[in-house]
Amino acid sequence: MAGGLITLTTDFGTADHFVGAMKGVILGIAPAARIVDITHEIAPYNLGEAAFVIAQAWSYFPKKTIHVVIVDPGVGTARRPILCEAGGQYFIAPDNGVLSMIYAAAPHKVRSIDNPKLMLREISRTFHGRDVFAPAAAHLSRGVPPAQFGKRIHDLIAGIGGPPDELSKHVWGGTILKVDHFGNLITNFHIEHFAGIKTRPFELRVGLQKIHRLALAYADTAIGELFAIVGSSGYLEIAANQASAMQTVGCSTGSPVELEIFYDT
Amino acid sequence: MAGGLITLTTDFGTADHFVGAMKGVILGIAPAARIVDITHEIAPYNLGEAAFVIAQAWSYFPKKTIHVVIVDPGVGTARRPILCEAGGQYFIAPDNGVLSMIYAAAPHKVRSIDNPKLMLREISRTFHGRDVFAPAAAHLSRGVPPAQFGKRIHDLIAGIGGPPDELSKHVWGGTILKVDHFGNLITNFHIEHFAGIKTRPFELRVGLQKIHRLALAYADTAIGELFAIVGSSGYLEIAANQASAMQTVGCSTGSPVELEIFYDT
Amino acid sequence: MAGGLITLTTDFGTADHFVGAMKGVILGIAPAARIVDITHEIAPYNLGEAAFVIAQAWSYFPKKTIHVVIVDPGVGTARRPILCEAGGQYFIAPDNGVLSMIYAAAPHKVRSIDNPKLMLREISRTFHGRDVFAPAAAHLSRGVPPAQFGKRIHDLIAGIGGPPDELSKHVWGGTILKVDHFGNLITNFHIEHFAGIKTRPFELRVGLQKIHRLALAYADTAIGELFAIVGSSGYLEIAANQASAMQTVGCSTGSPVELEIFYDT
Repeated sequence: MAGGLITLTTDFGTADHFVGAMKGVILGIAPAARIVDITHEIAPYNLGEAAFVIAQAWSYFPKKTIHVVIVDPGVGTARRPILCEAGGQYFIAPDNGVLSMIYAAAPHKVRSIDNPKLMLREISRTFHGRDVFAPAAAHLSRGVPPAQFGKRIHDLIAGIGGPPDELSKHVWGGTILKVDHFGNLITNFHIEHFAGIKTRPFELRVGLQKIHRLALAYADTAIGELFAIVGSSGYLEIAANQASAMQTVGCSTGSPVELEIFYDT
Repeated sequence: MAGGLITLTTDFGTADHFVGAMKGVILGIAPAARIVDITHEIAPYNLGEAAFVIAQAWSYFPKKTIHVVIVDPGVGTARRPILCEAGGQYFIAPDNGVLSMIYAAAPHKVRSIDNPKLMLREISRTFHGRDVFAPAAAHLSRGVPPAQFGKRIHDLIAGIGGPPDELSKHVWGGTILKVDHFGNLITNFHIEHFAGIKTRPFELRVGLQKIHRLALAYADTAIGELFAIVGSSGYLEIAANQASAMQTVGCSTGSPVELEIFYDT
Repeated sequence: MAGGLITLTTDFGTADHFVGAMKGVILGIAPAARIVDITHEIAPYNLGEAAFVIAQAWSYFPKKTIHVVIVDPGVGTARRPILCEAGGQYFIAPDNGVLSMIYAAAPHKVRSIDNPKLMLREISRTFHGRDVFAPAAAHLSRGVPPAQFGKRIHDLIAGIGGPPDELSKHVWGGTILKVDHFGNLITNFHIEHFAGIKTRPFELRVGLQKIHRLALAYADTAIGELFAIVGSSGYLEIAANQASAMQTVGCSTGSPVELEIFYDT
């Protein structure tokens, strides 16, 4: 595992020294590590966005990949750094719910990280990315076994990124998980659980808009038209052809979405 | 070619899981591949910008480098994914004109990519970057010969990034190919074809501005002064010293530019 | 040193071909080089931000790492490209003060880079990142000894990033070195020299605000509260819990900050 793969998902942005310092720490401990940025553009402190992004990316990586996920408004307090084994891969993050969608996706074993020998010598109160999480990932990539990082824990913080609620018969209330770069609104309606919209008339209500069309490809629609589409993650997305659905609808991450499927008409 | 070099140029942005998922797919198939981001900040759907950026970058890379270029408003329709060999390197892209400036720069051999064995098993309708283009690049980097990807094709979509038109004697109409990070307006007037401006008086008209000065270096000009300069790509650029020419002029990608060279005065 | 580590810190942004072309040049000369982006989002032409960022990141990298730092408003003029050895690492930059905080941090040996054999054959007037600095880093990473790049020089441009001035007894005038991604205002008051604020009452004046609290962790404060904190770099920062201090205070890079420590009350 000398050339272990480490990915980074943070809300640190790319304009500061933060990500560079983390990479320096990793390469100082594990010179052969290979680092891949997933994103550093999670909206500041937005646990839900980070939970969604890592859940969409991790399964495409090879076995043994180490994913570091840091959105950490509680840095410097008693919240625990954790090491999670799931799906043959590793996840290193604060215990604040940012791995919720990983827990939901696969059986998982979680440890708290509390071995000071696997951290930097001086731990700041504000930058555990550099002082705790980066060294942990680097040591893990060099073959330090998970058990050396700390004890198994079971009282995990979760609760982010759950499925829609049934509000009444055939009506569900969901939410926007994330707005992507193109302005598509990614909902928490997964096509596996709402396959009815493929064959039945439906109404998807978001902001002041009501959407009745499920398109198969962007280019099947008119320029600017608002429609629903099954995104590449399997979630229903609200999109506009070559335009921003976010601007058209006026909604963003966390906005409510209502879906009604007309089974009886 | 185990450690093959793969570059990425897309309009995916860096705030989503898109680029991370592509890199996961590449490294899953070709663990030794080395991935270099050219940019993921092409303006959404802007084929001309992507055509320009890859044309400015590719020739600095070593032989056999594989360049993946994805701006793909037609994703999910019948538009073809293609593999282009040119200048000793490889280009993987949708067939929508995004490689036009490569075709113009070097003799090229192009194939459609239609071998499903060299794609992911499930192909989404919206994310061929992950499902088609990334696997193609990874397999190519492992030594799969181009002929296995698909048949030679000759009816390519091109037509992006052509030279200026002669409007009347010594007057040419061109365009802004791209605005760079500093606000410089990069025109499609290449100094090779318009060397006259080095020795003759000229007028470059853009927005409401008329420019008569060709500077040799930014620092030769006054702070804020608007001037023309031969950019590092050989194209004439409209620049302002330590200021944004885009803001000064009020123009952007696609805006018209007129050049008159006074040979007769 | 075949797999030498090269970091990049520039104001080039990530939307153009600039960084990609530099990486192509590096990998063409030194195929085994490993490139790490520190940031390309230094505010255009802002020497102070670049000086600060590289000073915060370099010491976390392994010995022999080569740091390329380019903010270069004087590109194309007589300003010298330089190669600096300090702290067991290397720095390649224009001689315009961007390495000031490295000079202050460690004994250093500096050479001008003037050996044309270690540059690209054609040198543009506007893009020495590609034509001069990238090739220098690549050749250095392949083991070319520093002495071959050029002669020792001692008349360096410095003067960026100095410490606060004492304005009157127990009152100092400093400045904002950088605003980070979270809107924290990083001052040039280093805790080593102003440890008094840990034990004595103080007043930190910035914009129209007066701050009297030194917090130990973000989460110890109320949401939106403005406070001082010792940042992960050791500098005093003005922060707001889960909010942007920059917006709250209305200040930015270069704004003045005044600190008074009440030793006598």
